[in-house]
Amino acid sequence: MNGDLRVGLDIGATKVLGAVVDSGGTVVARSRQDTRLGAEGVLATATAVLDSLTTALDGVLPAHIGIGVCGIVDRGAGAVSHAVNLGIGEWFPLAGRLAERTGGTVLIENDVLAATWGAHVVSGAGDLAYLSVGTGLAAGFVLSGKLRRGAHGAAAEVGHLPVEPDGPRCSCGQRGCLELSASGSTLAAAWPADADADTGADTGGRVPPAAALFAAAAAGNPEAVRIRDRFAGRLADAIRILELSVGPDAIIIGGGVSQVGEPLLTAVAAALHAQAEGSPFLTALDLAGRTRLLPGKQPVGAIGAALIGEAG
Amino acid sequence: MNGDLRVGLDIGATKVLGAVVDSGGTVVARSRQDTRLGAEGVLATATAVLDSLTTALDGVLPAHIGIGVCGIVDRGAGAVSHAVNLGIGEWFPLAGRLAERTGGTVLIENDVLAATWGAHVVSGAGDLAYLSVGTGLAAGFVLSGKLRRGAHGAAAEVGHLPVEPDGPRCSCGQRGCLELSASGSTLAAAWPADADADTGADTGGRVPPAAALFAAAAAGNPEAVRIRDRFAGRLADAIRILELSVGPDAIIIGGGVSQVGEPLLTAVAAALHAQAEGSPFLTALDLAGRTRLLPGKQPVGAIGAALIGEAG
Repeated sequence: MNGDLRVGLDIGATKVLGAVVDSGGTVVARSRQDTRLGAEGVLATATAVLDSLTTALDGVLPAHIGIGVCGIVDRGAGAVSHAVNLGIGEWFPLAGRLAERTGGTVLIENDVLAATWGAHVVSGAGDLAYLSVGTGLAAGFVLSGKLRRGAHGAAAEVGHLPVEPDGPRCSCGQRGCLELSASGSTLAAAWPADADADTGADTGGRVPPAAALFAAAAAGNPEAVRIRDRFAGRLADAIRILELSVGPDAIIIGGGVSQVGEPLLTAVAAALHAQAEGSPFLTALDLAGRTRLLPGKQPVGAIGAALIGEAG
Repeated sequence: MNGDLRVGLDIGATKVLGAVVDSGGTVVARSRQDTRLGAEGVLATATAVLDSLTTALDGVLPAHIGIGVCGIVDRGAGAVSHAVNLGIGEWFPLAGRLAERTGGTVLIENDVLAATWGAHVVSGAGDLAYLSVGTGLAAGFVLSGKLRRGAHGAAAEVGHLPVEPDGPRCSCGQRGCLELSASGSTLAAAWPADADADTGADTGGRVPPAAALFAAAAAGNPEAVRIRDRFAGRLADAIRILELSVGPDAIIIGGGVSQVGEPLLTAVAAALHAQAEGSPFLTALDLAGRTRLLPGKQPVGAIGAALIGEAG
């Protein structure tokens, strides 16, 4: 066993990403597999990723394993339920089953919370909101160095705040939720991916919708500009909500859409400046100056899962 | 000196309320004076309240004094600035000046944060959002037993989240802020106080606008019903924002308007239920079941100020 190393698994509907990290969050090995759905499928995929990491580490897997998984998590029982995208409904003791197979200690956490802790680790920010812009929109907090877990699992649900009372119906049952206009799904629907272009990113040659949209907007396509600015405006709304309720020091944008990089940050900063126009109050808060992207393209979900035992 | 007792001063634009409390937050003596404005006026009023409390305690004032005051507070320097309603602009070393006069230890805190801590003390809730519905609308948090102080003084500013993009201009420079439709000022403008009625409350015979409005609505006045329900709907909006961002266990409503009592809670609960209609997600969170009024009519601002040294 490598005493100082830990393993983190970021279990998503598309892939399971595993990383071996040191106590400072530096990744020393990684492995990924396409996710097989259903409880036993997820377990098999996670096991395959761990096997691959064991091989990469010359046959010795670290004894501490952390899992970040979507759905409702019972940390004490090591179980997950309501992970709809994974095909897991009823409580499934994922941590216990993996502990049996590996002989190690396995902790489990909600994936957004794990990624939030990972954002803390890689950014060094001790007081932050992590805004995950992926298929959906979610947020998590590290406040005064501690991961915030809501009392009833409702923290991090900023995506389900309605901003358009007469807007379309959201999957949560409300109307006009932020997530409907500020998520990767929205962009994919408004600007389908361009299969012919190639950005060199690890996407099998396809340009993800967000990247294609931002490229078209940068090239002056007026419809792309309109969609981009509306999207950035809604992210700015989310940031204002997080700031005026909880007052985090830093706002860090992550999730799949954040791979757009600087053009995304530039658009969001412009929206935050527009929001603050005419308001000395908002201007003084300098939300644009305190909003940043995750440094590098680091697997914060897996890093945070690996180190989740230190999150309090 | 009484070792176990502490003094709290809640300094507002109308009155300075002083309370001597024990370590559990029970009030053993209190005194109030109308506020004289300006830095020296505030100091003189606070001194007069302390003198009155000293007399009530047979000449022995506790050595620990806490102040809750509106404006921007520098806890380390013991100073306050930008307390517009008090006529204090530049930094004024209020804590130091009171320490000179009393020979005691004097701490200073923002008034909403002091009241939030007081709400924690009197309610016993360890994880809460305190929604102060007074002249304006503000909120504070105690999260996992610790008072949340925002990194840039922006926490607690939920009242300045815009909910009506084309709404009227707010004093903060934005448009359609929550505070414009969910505060005591709004009710006072929409439903001026009835000088003829008398509820027996300590208001010099006048019924405060909020109480008059709720009484008229209960009596079936359709305009009063409309204003009440719109107001309660906006408070429900604020509660949903606090819950879906931070996820506090309890939501506690205080501030001047909360003296309306049960009819206010009933109206807000109805609005929260209406909000959750059609959303299993919101329904499961049971915001109405976790929202309550401050127990009794306790001076949480002064109680919280007295015990602010334990807030972390």
